[in-house]
Amino acid sequence: MNHDSNDTQKVKLTGDEVAKHNSRESCWVIVQGRAYDVTEFLPEHPGGPKIILKYAGKDATEEFEPIHPPDTLDKYLDKSKHLGEVDMNTVKQEKKEEDPDEQERQERIRRMPILEQCYNLMDFEAVARKVMKKTAWAYYSSGADDEITLRENHNAFHKIWFRPRILQDVEHIDTSATMLGTKVDMPYYVTATALGKLGHPEGEVVLTRGAKKHNVIQMIPTLASCSFDEIIDAAEGDQVQWLQLYVNKNRDITKRIVEHAEKRGCKGLFITVDAPQLGRREKDMRSKFDDVGSNVQSSSGSEVDRSQGAARAISSFIDPALSWKDIPWFLSITKMPILLKGVQCVEDVIRAVEAGVHGVVLSNHGGRQLDFARSGIEVLAEVMPVLRERGWQDRIEIYIDGGVRRATDIIKALCLGAKGVGIGRPFLYAMSAYGLPGVDRAMQLLKDEMEMNMRLIGCSKISELNPTLIDTRGLGMHTAPVPRDTLGYNVYDPLIGPKEKSKL
Amino acid sequence: MNHDSNDTQKVKLTGDEVAKHNSRESCWVIVQGRAYDVTEFLPEHPGGPKIILKYAGKDATEEFEPIHPPDTLDKYLDKSKHLGEVDMNTVKQEKKEEDPDEQERQERIRRMPILEQCYNLMDFEAVARKVMKKTAWAYYSSGADDEITLRENHNAFHKIWFRPRILQDVEHIDTSATMLGTKVDMPYYVTATALGKLGHPEGEVVLTRGAKKHNVIQMIPTLASCSFDEIIDAAEGDQVQWLQLYVNKNRDITKRIVEHAEKRGCKGLFITVDAPQLGRREKDMRSKFDDVGSNVQSSSGSEVDRSQGAARAISSFIDPALSWKDIPWFLSITKMPILLKGVQCVEDVIRAVEAGVHGVVLSNHGGRQLDFARSGIEVLAEVMPVLRERGWQDRIEIYIDGGVRRATDIIKALCLGAKGVGIGRPFLYAMSAYGLPGVDRAMQLLKDEMEMNMRLIGCSKISELNPTLIDTRGLGMHTAPVPRDTLGYNVYDPLIGPKEKSKL
Amino acid sequence: MNHDSNDTQKVKLTGDEVAKHNSRESCWVIVQGRAYDVTEFLPEHPGGPKIILKYAGKDATEEFEPIHPPDTLDKYLDKSKHLGEVDMNTVKQEKKEEDPDEQERQERIRRMPILEQCYNLMDFEAVARKVMKKTAWAYYSSGADDEITLRENHNAFHKIWFRPRILQDVEHIDTSATMLGTKVDMPYYVTATALGKLGHPEGEVVLTRGAKKHNVIQMIPTLASCSFDEIIDAAEGDQVQWLQLYVNKNRDITKRIVEHAEKRGCKGLFITVDAPQLGRREKDMRSKFDDVGSNVQSSSGSEVDRSQGAARAISSFIDPALSWKDIPWFLSITKMPILLKGVQCVEDVIRAVEAGVHGVVLSNHGGRQLDFARSGIEVLAEVMPVLRERGWQDRIEIYIDGGVRRATDIIKALCLGAKGVGIGRPFLYAMSAYGLPGVDRAMQLLKDEMEMNMRLIGCSKISELNPTLIDTRGLGMHTAPVPRDTLGYNVYDPLIGPKEKSKL
Amino acid sequence: MNHDSNDTQKVKLTGDEVAKHNSRESCWVIVQGRAYDVTEFLPEHPGGPKIILKYAGKDATEEFEPIHPPDTLDKYLDKSKHLGEVDMNTVKQEKKEEDPDEQERQERIRRMPILEQCYNLMDFEAVARKVMKKTAWAYYSSGADDEITLRENHNAFHKIWFRPRILQDVEHIDTSATMLGTKVDMPYYVTATALGKLGHPEGEVVLTRGAKKHNVIQMIPTLASCSFDEIIDAAEGDQVQWLQLYVNKNRDITKRIVEHAEKRGCKGLFITVDAPQLGRREKDMRSKFDDVGSNVQSSSGSEVDRSQGAARAISSFIDPALSWKDIPWFLSITKMPILLKGVQCVEDVIRAVEAGVHGVVLSNHGGRQLDFARSGIEVLAEVMPVLRERGWQDRIEIYIDGGVRRATDIIKALCLGAKGVGIGRPFLYAMSAYGLPGVDRAMQLLKDEMEMNMRLIGCSKISELNPTLIDTRGLGMHTAPVPRDTLGYNVYDPLIGPKEKSKL
Repeated sequence: MNHDSNDTQKVKLTGDEVAKHNSRESCWVIVQGRAYDVTEFLPEHPGGPKIILKYAGKDATEEFEPIHPPDTLDKYLDKSKHLGEVDMNTVKQEKKEEDPDEQERQERIRRMPILEQCYNLMDFEAVARKVMKKTAWAYYSSGADDEITLRENHNAFHKIWFRPRILQDVEHIDTSATMLGTKVDMPYYVTATALGKLGHPEGEVVLTRGAKKHNVIQMIPTLASCSFDEIIDAAEGDQVQWLQLYVNKNRDITKRIVEHAEKRGCKGLFITVDAPQLGRREKDMRSKFDDVGSNVQSSSGSEVDRSQGAARAISSFIDPALSWKDIPWFLSITKMPILLKGVQCVEDVIRAVEAGVHGVVLSNHGGRQLDFARSGIEVLAEVMPVLRERGWQDRIEIYIDGGVRRATDIIKALCLGAKGVGIGRPFLYAMSAYGLPGVDRAMQLLKDEMEMNMRLIGCSKISELNPTLIDTRGLGMHTAPVPRDTLGYNVYDPLIGPKEKSKL
Repeated sequence: MNHDSNDTQKVKLTGDEVAKHNSRESCWVIVQGRAYDVTEFLPEHPGGPKIILKYAGKDATEEFEPIHPPDTLDKYLDKSKHLGEVDMNTVKQEKKEEDPDEQERQERIRRMPILEQCYNLMDFEAVARKVMKKTAWAYYSSGADDEITLRENHNAFHKIWFRPRILQDVEHIDTSATMLGTKVDMPYYVTATALGKLGHPEGEVVLTRGAKKHNVIQMIPTLASCSFDEIIDAAEGDQVQWLQLYVNKNRDITKRIVEHAEKRGCKGLFITVDAPQLGRREKDMRSKFDDVGSNVQSSSGSEVDRSQGAARAISSFIDPALSWKDIPWFLSITKMPILLKGVQCVEDVIRAVEAGVHGVVLSNHGGRQLDFARSGIEVLAEVMPVLRERGWQDRIEIYIDGGVRRATDIIKALCLGAKGVGIGRPFLYAMSAYGLPGVDRAMQLLKDEMEMNMRLIGCSKISELNPTLIDTRGLGMHTAPVPRDTLGYNVYDPLIGPKEKSKL
Repeated sequence: MNHDSNDTQKVKLTGDEVAKHNSRESCWVIVQGRAYDVTEFLPEHPGGPKIILKYAGKDATEEFEPIHPPDTLDKYLDKSKHLGEVDMNTVKQEKKEEDPDEQERQERIRRMPILEQCYNLMDFEAVARKVMKKTAWAYYSSGADDEITLRENHNAFHKIWFRPRILQDVEHIDTSATMLGTKVDMPYYVTATALGKLGHPEGEVVLTRGAKKHNVIQMIPTLASCSFDEIIDAAEGDQVQWLQLYVNKNRDITKRIVEHAEKRGCKGLFITVDAPQLGRREKDMRSKFDDVGSNVQSSSGSEVDRSQGAARAISSFIDPALSWKDIPWFLSITKMPILLKGVQCVEDVIRAVEAGVHGVVLSNHGGRQLDFARSGIEVLAEVMPVLRERGWQDRIEIYIDGGVRRATDIIKALCLGAKGVGIGRPFLYAMSAYGLPGVDRAMQLLKDEMEMNMRLIGCSKISELNPTLIDTRGLGMHTAPVPRDTLGYNVYDPLIGPKEKSKL
Repeated sequence: MNHDSNDTQKVKLTGDEVAKHNSRESCWVIVQGRAYDVTEFLPEHPGGPKIILKYAGKDATEEFEPIHPPDTLDKYLDKSKHLGEVDMNTVKQEKKEEDPDEQERQERIRRMPILEQCYNLMDFEAVARKVMKKTAWAYYSSGADDEITLRENHNAFHKIWFRPRILQDVEHIDTSATMLGTKVDMPYYVTATALGKLGHPEGEVVLTRGAKKHNVIQMIPTLASCSFDEIIDAAEGDQVQWLQLYVNKNRDITKRIVEHAEKRGCKGLFITVDAPQLGRREKDMRSKFDDVGSNVQSSSGSEVDRSQGAARAISSFIDPALSWKDIPWFLSITKMPILLKGVQCVEDVIRAVEAGVHGVVLSNHGGRQLDFARSGIEVLAEVMPVLRERGWQDRIEIYIDGGVRRATDIIKALCLGAKGVGIGRPFLYAMSAYGLPGVDRAMQLLKDEMEMNMRLIGCSKISELNPTLIDTRGLGMHTAPVPRDTLGYNVYDPLIGPKEKSKL
């Protein structure tokens, strides 16, 4: 953050002075020891004025930090409103209520399993669920509507089975792959996920360091908690990063972002196309009310807090009018390869090829946007035969994300024809539970699984993976069983095994 | 209610006078402060004489009101039997037993979640289940036999998945639609459901007001708790209503009803064709006995109370002989468009077109009639391709109802070719739990979901919805898995995640 | 029972005299007040000698009665071994141990729901499970191996859905049908089930009376607790009964049984062909050991009690060599129509037609013989199209049994082409729980359901039922879902509804 | 074990002397009363040095014995390192901590059901799970990754149903079969499983005795706890055994093993081809940490105990470079028939025929190697039609293993075309719970089931089993249902049966 603005200031502001500006008419807030006048900004705040007014005249750092990159105030608030340093000794400490939920969480943190007890990516999620703050967990883990797609994403991999080959020499396994021209050690990348500081105080740079260590690519999110430059700066040597882009209604801003990314060395531009509006995620929305709201009386219709969780708060700038017509413009402003992230049927993949982009990510945004969107792996199985029939399979790079938890999931995607897969939440959970060592171990586990399973399927390098190694007959059947025969089940007397002797 | 009949009466009746007529030989009852001689009516009562005799000589208002429209006594009981006002101060108050179930319900009502905590239509059902009277809940929520169809109705939507299009300009979303010539804001209508006062003391007019606010159509039920005219009178401005019709054995009555509805401005006549007899709903039937019956000795066969829940009590007038031969007559007595409600296979849709009706509702009566009837959405997927093949898709308007809970459900139906969908129980539950504000919020949530999901599927108006946007391969497979391998499951030792340290 | 044999006897035997014969060398038992010398019979006893020796020198009536028809001793034990009456006052009463299970059962009997609380056939099973003796319940309710077929039998009906027709005149519903020339009120018969006295002290004659009242046919079981003649004698008027036949290794005995049945008026002979050996039913076998065996030490291999439950005990006479070659002989010894009970694939139905029998029952013996045998309804769907293709559908009457619990199940079978269905266990349970009134109510409930559902499917008589009224696409898929993703389910945080306010 | 090496030694070593050598620099251990200097061997130990160092200077017998055949030290440790006998009286007894888990296990052992209460193969597993040591149970019962294939193996049999034939003379049932020229009483063999002493102190020879008694073949595992010769020596008369072979990186060792086996009379060589690396089995890996690790602090990355359960420890010698090119060499070094164990798709079966081997086992290593490998029975259904089309069905013997628990499973495999099936874990569990009598009873139960089910399917000998007797339409569909509709299920109010009267 740029601290220069009012640094001619000699005398620090006092807590009392700030505290007077505690209303819609004059609203000051303290962030990281400095005061800001946000009165005029209130109506423009993407998350609504209410959440700011809660901190009017007070220190808002704790609420502010995880969901705003540090350069936010410099970027969006005129320098004249930066009021300078505050003498924090004079700021009244809010006495926090004793929160029994929080006390239980602290107890769970004390009893956390040690890192070596995590043997797979699900284990990090199990730990994170117990040790993360409830609202942070709700933001990361929630999906759209009934969270059917959220769960289907991993489920769908369970419909694909292997047809391994035996007696192949698999002494030396090479899991390296090439993505958009970059050689990586494993055929996955760390995909973009928002608000990393909700899970870990350092945010996305932890993932940057993990990706470096395992030589995989990180995709930088538009909605990171860290600033773009912080994440770029955290990269070392020739480490490759990509940029995920939400397109702003103001194309000038978008152009600036893209040009800056290219200048800073990003090697791929992933335009998110499945989020003209950010999703309704009820677990996220509900997590607020269930904390504080359930003892209050229903407010009248007009005064209702229309807060809808973190997702809505941070996304109002996204342009819902973005369309195929914009693609040539993107191609004109950058030399980075351009990929569309969130393609969901074969028709749009064909259109993408025709539009001249360099790749697509078959994705449903981690099940966070449209419920009953199909999983990326299922769409992949729809797409590849059509591309092959046209001889187009090499005109474009196809990636998928969503639900990848095991090396076998990666192998299945590659057998079908993907160049690689994106993995998001599992690394967030590993980071939230154990920091960088967690991310490191998660990546190491994937590597161990990958080598083992390449051996067992009978392939020593990525290029040998092909469709004859899998059985996809189960894929694409969206079976919902006939509703349970309640009365019938109630009266059935289940078989039991041998009975123990009674207590001796 | 017409209070004129014996209003020449000067002296009010006393409770004691009424109380003498407490037998099958002479049976008087008090309803809303007025006494009626129902002795001769006993054998004709559709719900059987027993329930009336329970109140012989007493005040029956509380039992009477929710299941009889206020004009019932005027319509069906000769004026000479209207005995005039009763001095209610002289009527002995029944001392109600302390009912622990009712006390618990009152406690639950005190702890009701506030309205803003409801984020989807299921949430209202969750609340209603806790705060409604048990018998009212049983009447609304019950279905036929094993309630397989009841549950399949929503289940079936889960077998349909989306194939969304990206990069469509979806800045402006128009969810308006046209049904039978009426422009509405959303492509659903409030379908007819019986006995609204079981859930809310004001009954169906609450739904009328909600429908007005959101500019959607209400279908008025034959078996409403409010009278037809009350519901019509509750409409405002150019608000459009339709009439749902159970056809009476006495066609003169039916003709009178239809003509009256047309005169009062109804814009559509929906003849129910899936209910020649109202269903056995065991949850409804059982709710009685489990309240009061389980401690009594079994009565001898002939004296058994054959009470079979509310459904049977109110439906004896319906004509099971209604047939295709009656359709021309209906077409001759009204200019309203005529639709058949409850069509369940493509053969009957074709026959309906040939019979000249204007539309059909593919419906199984909310799973309350024939168990193992297929869901409306599944029948729709059977019907539309056949109609399109014949070029008949515009000769008739197709609606469905049953199981609609999410905007995605509506979108799926419209993609397949429906003009709109009917929604019933969800609004009943919203009304029962929160009154008009509940109905308002339920409709607003649907609107929010609809706009969001139209955007995410890549359509900015209803007319763009089409079959290529959905994947229906899973629909129509009525899968019941192989029975559980009990012994095998018993011995399987499930995987567990990392174990916490023991208590420190 | 014939009591004449030694009735010249003047002096009654004393308990002490009998008690001396308590060994394998000399073994007397008392049954219903009379003593029998069974020493020589021990090795021939179908249930093995051990169970008799347990009662050597004692009164065996309670154990003997439910599993032997009263004429058993007359038939199978030479008159010289009938020792005559015993003075029961001199027989030492066994002091029964207090059995906490039995006390709990008696308590459950006191709290039994009243009959009117049973609304469907499953309800009788729910009650019977609680009030029957554990071993009796185990015998009735058990199936082969993992009881997969036992459960599949009803399950399979859930894979068939309706395609009802509307606007048919269904005022008058006629559920009558014709089976083997007999007009019955409902298209089902009471099928043969063994050992009725395990459930009710009067045994199978209770079913005879119920069948009479509802004008349906009863099939008399070979392994009844009542004697054949008792069951025939219990019939009234022109009541029709059939005979189920296990074919004895000694064909003379079989011939005698068949001729006797024809003479006594039986109108159909159902030869069981799915039980060359009676099934292993582990629930039945286990019910013994779990009662008494679990505290004893394991006996050495050779001395082990090889008791295998009731089924094995009573079936050793059945001829496993019975084959197609025997059919002409059966056709030669009786004029009764002959049907094969237990046919399980279309090839054998064709062979049955060619063999000249009059019908088949597609059955798997209630899931008690071969586990993973398909359900009768599924086999029916395989059989009928082949018969129709050959034009053979009227050359033979096809019945099914197994899993029928609802009138909709019956309707589905008749739509596919069955002439009727057999129902067994549900009536046993109704009888066991409530005696004749239970059977009466069970049949009445079926009748009510039948009329209702005929109306709702749009048919006024049985002959109108046809294959276009059902959707059988789900039938025949034996789906076992992919094993549960244990770790994935463990970490998924399920959605919840709105939270109540905390305790006020 | 060869005890000669230092037997010139007169004076026994003392515990104190050994105890001095308790470091990486000088490491002695005691095994079965004799001391060994393993200092130089530490880095070569397949299970890593750490586990040995735990016992440096101490008695390691208890840990050593179950996972090393008795000739291990002779084979792999130079004679000069055999230090001779130890005076065990001078060895300090480790005081074992009181282990509440172990106390509970001892209590469960006291209350074990008697053997006669086991009625099927699952029952032994139920008992074994309760009475085995946790780590032993984890080793036997664990599978790869999510254990999907582990469970699918038995599951898959549930997708196959029977089409039995009636009226076949099935008085005499002959279950004998021929495998690789050997006549056996039942068409299964005891397949190779590792580390038998984890379950029973005598190890694999218990299975040898059981196999003899029931005249079936035992396949001897490479990784047995007993030595190969011990197992061979345990065979009696003309008892036939086969050898399962993990191929060593050092082909000389492999050659020696094969030649030795042939010399000792083995009649078949089964080369394992599905395990170039032994699997990650998380239940096995986790069982260690959850015992001892969860209270310790996480160690730093480099010092972490990389112990990964028993499987990894014992398998480092296996050659991952084994390939089709090695097959001719195998054919050249032995006259035993050679079979490939672990073939998993039809392409490789064809290749095996072309390579001239005598048979294949369609197997996924009991679900312990590649998760989502298909079950043997499913692969069999893929293989046989292709072989028959080519007329190759008799050029090779096809076996399957995995998930066989019932005689019906065996029958299904033989109907499809297998010559026999391998059964592993069930006999291990029977042995672990009850020793030889357990194995005996398990085999007897299979025999009883087999005779019964052959009768019920209408076949009197193995050669009559054929594909028309089964319905495999369900096989090969890998169905994973749509994720559960959580909110919908939460609000559904399930049907209940009749309610008991309240407490009297």
